[in-house]
Amino acid sequence: MSEQEVNKSSNVVWHQAAVGRSDRETSNGHRSAVLWFTGLSGAGKSTLAHAVEERLHAMGTKTFVIDGDNVRHGLCGDLSFSDEDRVENIRRVGEVAKLFVEAGMLTLTAFISPFRSDRAKVRSLLGDGDFVEVYCRTPLEVCESRDVKGLYAKARAGEIPAFTGISSPYEEPESPEIIADTGTLPLDQCVDQVIIYLLDNGYIKGLDI
Amino acid sequence: MSEQEVNKSSNVVWHQAAVGRSDRETSNGHRSAVLWFTGLSGAGKSTLAHAVEERLHAMGTKTFVIDGDNVRHGLCGDLSFSDEDRVENIRRVGEVAKLFVEAGMLTLTAFISPFRSDRAKVRSLLGDGDFVEVYCRTPLEVCESRDVKGLYAKARAGEIPAFTGISSPYEEPESPEIIADTGTLPLDQCVDQVIIYLLDNGYIKGLDI
Repeated sequence: MSEQEVNKSSNVVWHQAAVGRSDRETSNGHRSAVLWFTGLSGAGKSTLAHAVEERLHAMGTKTFVIDGDNVRHGLCGDLSFSDEDRVENIRRVGEVAKLFVEAGMLTLTAFISPFRSDRAKVRSLLGDGDFVEVYCRTPLEVCESRDVKGLYAKARAGEIPAFTGISSPYEEPESPEIIADTGTLPLDQCVDQVIIYLLDNGYIKGLDI
Repeated sequence: MSEQEVNKSSNVVWHQAAVGRSDRETSNGHRSAVLWFTGLSGAGKSTLAHAVEERLHAMGTKTFVIDGDNVRHGLCGDLSFSDEDRVENIRRVGEVAKLFVEAGMLTLTAFISPFRSDRAKVRSLLGDGDFVEVYCRTPLEVCESRDVKGLYAKARAGEIPAFTGISSPYEEPESPEIIADTGTLPLDQCVDQVIIYLLDNGYIKGLDI
């Protein structure tokens, strides 16, 4: 009997209630999961994630995007870009994504997450089918030619240490659930590809399209 | 123009989509917020939070409880019970709660959170009305008489250092939005009190009761 089950002072029984993941999924009308977008800087991860979210939201599903914009200055604001802190960054994002899955949401994350071991750790936190790896396969030369933030130029000049693709490796996913050719295809086509995956694999239902 | 707005390799424009908090609130049919349950060990925070959640879920709202059970071994699994790590624990919980508010959820947290400064920091992270402090006002002697986990006995014996209420202070909320007399009232009555607050202050609508 837990500390909260009995209120001894009044002899009133306090039962522990529990709304579980399956209750939320039933209420939401779709399965929860993490869509983990990975790829080089400038590959289009965040844009694709937000575009998929927009489509999912329009279909009535409960979604949320976790990306650098909402964790860099918040949850992970205490972390640097050292190897150790990058591992911790991805660990925390994985743990938060797990909470969102428990909460019944289709959760989209957009982080370079260059190391297979880090992505594998997040996958192992979650149940079967809860981790959908979406590889945004824009080639390095395309990302570098875009270089809107000028980061690749700085990395080439040696001004940014351990920059993924230049001075630090990007380990391509070996068997991602989805490979999106974000370097060559129109955005809508990449969104379609993700939505079709979710429909075909029973994450969402197509009735509201 | 952000790195993702233009896909230079194909000249296809990639617009940044954005589903915002208000879109989610509209879809969910209720406002999002954090209900922050604070009080001594054994006060009934977690039980009350879960019971409120059960009621809210039955009313069709989107809810989630963040408590020790789902963060102690996950997101905050690297933290000890040192003063510094306790502060960091509450900081992370606050940041995660903020993400859940952005995601449109009525988010309930259940942590002793004994220090006013820590609770004030979480409040300051959030917008006006987004932080609803629920003080579970079970007196120390009642919590200690329950002592189902035997923690108070151990603390009195000096086996647990810095135990809140015994060898470390609990700073009572000065102007919490809700004071729940979890030491004397039946659970249902405490749940009613929280639900009525949410109705009266426009967080939720009563139509589905």
